[in-house]
Amino acid sequence: MAAAPTLARRIARSGVLPGCHRLPAWGRAARQPPGPLQPPSLPLSPCRAFSNNKILVELDESSGVAMMKFKSPPVNSLSLDFLTEFCISLEKLENNRACRGVIFTSAVPKIFSSGLDITEMCGKSTEHYAEFWRAVQEMWLQLYGSNMVTVAAVNGSSPAGGCLLALSCDYRIMVENPKFSIGLNEAQLGIVAPFWFKDTFVNIVGHRVAERSLQLGSLHAAPEALRFGLVDELVAEEKLQEKAAAVMAQWLALPDHARQLTKSMMRKAVLDRLVAHREEDIQNFISFISKESIQKSLRMYMEMLKKKKS
Amino acid sequence: MAAAPTLARRIARSGVLPGCHRLPAWGRAARQPPGPLQPPSLPLSPCRAFSNNKILVELDESSGVAMMKFKSPPVNSLSLDFLTEFCISLEKLENNRACRGVIFTSAVPKIFSSGLDITEMCGKSTEHYAEFWRAVQEMWLQLYGSNMVTVAAVNGSSPAGGCLLALSCDYRIMVENPKFSIGLNEAQLGIVAPFWFKDTFVNIVGHRVAERSLQLGSLHAAPEALRFGLVDELVAEEKLQEKAAAVMAQWLALPDHARQLTKSMMRKAVLDRLVAHREEDIQNFISFISKESIQKSLRMYMEMLKKKKS
Amino acid sequence: MAAAPTLARRIARSGVLPGCHRLPAWGRAARQPPGPLQPPSLPLSPCRAFSNNKILVELDESSGVAMMKFKSPPVNSLSLDFLTEFCISLEKLENNRACRGVIFTSAVPKIFSSGLDITEMCGKSTEHYAEFWRAVQEMWLQLYGSNMVTVAAVNGSSPAGGCLLALSCDYRIMVENPKFSIGLNEAQLGIVAPFWFKDTFVNIVGHRVAERSLQLGSLHAAPEALRFGLVDELVAEEKLQEKAAAVMAQWLALPDHARQLTKSMMRKAVLDRLVAHREEDIQNFISFISKESIQKSLRMYMEMLKKKKS
Repeated sequence: MAAAPTLARRIARSGVLPGCHRLPAWGRAARQPPGPLQPPSLPLSPCRAFSNNKILVELDESSGVAMMKFKSPPVNSLSLDFLTEFCISLEKLENNRACRGVIFTSAVPKIFSSGLDITEMCGKSTEHYAEFWRAVQEMWLQLYGSNMVTVAAVNGSSPAGGCLLALSCDYRIMVENPKFSIGLNEAQLGIVAPFWFKDTFVNIVGHRVAERSLQLGSLHAAPEALRFGLVDELVAEEKLQEKAAAVMAQWLALPDHARQLTKSMMRKAVLDRLVAHREEDIQNFISFISKESIQKSLRMYMEMLKKKKS
Repeated sequence: MAAAPTLARRIARSGVLPGCHRLPAWGRAARQPPGPLQPPSLPLSPCRAFSNNKILVELDESSGVAMMKFKSPPVNSLSLDFLTEFCISLEKLENNRACRGVIFTSAVPKIFSSGLDITEMCGKSTEHYAEFWRAVQEMWLQLYGSNMVTVAAVNGSSPAGGCLLALSCDYRIMVENPKFSIGLNEAQLGIVAPFWFKDTFVNIVGHRVAERSLQLGSLHAAPEALRFGLVDELVAEEKLQEKAAAVMAQWLALPDHARQLTKSMMRKAVLDRLVAHREEDIQNFISFISKESIQKSLRMYMEMLKKKKS
Repeated sequence: MAAAPTLARRIARSGVLPGCHRLPAWGRAARQPPGPLQPPSLPLSPCRAFSNNKILVELDESSGVAMMKFKSPPVNSLSLDFLTEFCISLEKLENNRACRGVIFTSAVPKIFSSGLDITEMCGKSTEHYAEFWRAVQEMWLQLYGSNMVTVAAVNGSSPAGGCLLALSCDYRIMVENPKFSIGLNEAQLGIVAPFWFKDTFVNIVGHRVAERSLQLGSLHAAPEALRFGLVDELVAEEKLQEKAAAVMAQWLALPDHARQLTKSMMRKAVLDRLVAHREEDIQNFISFISKESIQKSLRMYMEMLKKKKS
């Protein structure tokens, strides 16, 4: 399946080719497995930190762990620019043999990510909707299918697409502040989470919790999110980074090769489903989002946000 | 797939055509979405209450919520007549734009519904078995696939088909009386729950709980039913209607259109499976129920019930 | 699908033919259902006890319950010989109408089974790997698809293939000793649990717990195993046999025919998946295990075990 020309062009300008989901099939060669008793292999390409406009990436080569910080105020919304930078950054790390794991967190107080940028879905051209949706798909395919260990350090609220981002990681740690909430609340906005958001959610919380939560568009406060399994544990804000590092170390203690093949086995069916229906999913998004009733709902929602702000 | 001629005829006499599962496909038009900020649309057809022999329906047009009360003593068993009335009543509400949600409850003390009427499965003709089974399928297809919000207010025991009826709703509230039990106990009678009973059950409690409960034919007392997720909450009997109304209001706060598309996305695979194998499922039922060993088991079970009663 | 010639030959020498998964399709005749009110049918073939080198089987004809004890010190590892004896013993019971249920337990202190015998996977010929893997498949197909009630009385640790053996039963009771652990820890050894280990695991603990546990190669101490649903209950060691007998009696109270058809309905999809891909799965195993990197890992692991022992 060809990548979207526009996204490809944007990414090509950065010298990084977009990868589809990266998990290897059974038995195919993956990144070098160091094995539990071997010394870590030397990094092939030195890389300390790189920063785009909206994302800061720091790689600790001694541990093989990168930190990806979202710094796109006010709410780290997933705009086309943000998504493009995200995919480029993740791809760089994926291709860097010195990097075995990534921790995702926010540099903006109180918010992890507010989800898809509504301005990208409102009053734009069909071509723009297609380009935007392909970038959303690409973000998920790369992240859910990453060969690296991925840990979400959720230090703020994380609705809709922000929740998807966390759900696509291997492990989720959330700050135990009950004011922070997380969930796929699309229904509240009059829109519908696509099937692959749903598949990712069902894989984590099971069918019943997903059905109820998606229909009600629920945002779950941190303690409830833990109870329903949306996140794996809660910690005090000041312990978040330390905890994320400890969890990462636990996952990196496993041989990469076996862990990656196992991850692929668990996620392949759901990844393959989007890959097989990618163009259809884009067309569905375009025809849904182009409806006048949906456009009206989104405009009203944005008005409400503006009033709330001022 | 054509509806059973006999059921169609029965229902056609009532002037209502049987609908297959009603949930719209992604992006297809559903009932008018009022949107969170729009005034509710005017009802197209006024409708306060209608009653058949076995079911009483009351619609509150101001809230858009109907109450469907089962009044078929002694145990609200799902006879062919009951199922036919059920499908007609639900269809009427489904087609009434003034109705957005239905609460199901019992007008018979201590029992929600005892499940499929065994007399319909014992000593009857092949044609009768086919007509009966098609009506059971139709009840599930309409209810599990309803566009409306469906809440079961379970005010009594609910074994077998009665349990399926509750499981097919969006939400289940049960009276917290430990003498009331619920479960798919078919195996206790020497019969087997069909695959779509099982699929509905697995979607709610997961594979492991379903496997154990179905093999043992377990009836779960209310507190255990809550623990296993068969019901969503327990309340005191005198608070049941109030609680059901509050839950309904919470679900109706969402825009209909987004909620319906989400519900369809969650349930479509399981609904489609029966639609694709409907005639085969009827033939399986007929050949299973016609076995002399099964007929003998059912006769013995009915004898036991009669003795218990007298 | 033809049985492996080598396994067939081994088993044929014992006069028992290997059966594929035995659960009957809907409506097919199963073992005679005694029905809840009928006297138990007379045993067709008297059988008290038989013992091979590695497994002891005792059948109590009055209750219809067999006890299968693993007695292959030091750790009941699943060697080709053990697996062959296991399949023969299970097949004998499956074909004995006097036997309706089997309890599996260990005669070796502190260990239920250590899982697949690594010496069978290290430095052997391609033909040997194929024969061994076919025997592992056969064990699972027979046990997961058994018509009998199967209860695991887990009186010791049970990693990897030992865990699979327990997971394939209808019910798991574990001694509440926190030093005993259970889990599919293949990833710790640098290898990957095959898809049907994974499917069995997911059916019991759900997708999320399985994904995390498999990637980390976790061994769960008894209390955690209970919390995650890997086992159904914990008891004191001295109560284990009594508890297993009580659970067995509860399951045997159900009519065999209905229980068997229900079990088949729950497990058929997963059993069919291996049957459909059996040869491919063998080829995958051979090519994976033959890799020099994997052989090296296994050799190192065996060295470590030897040092630990001495």
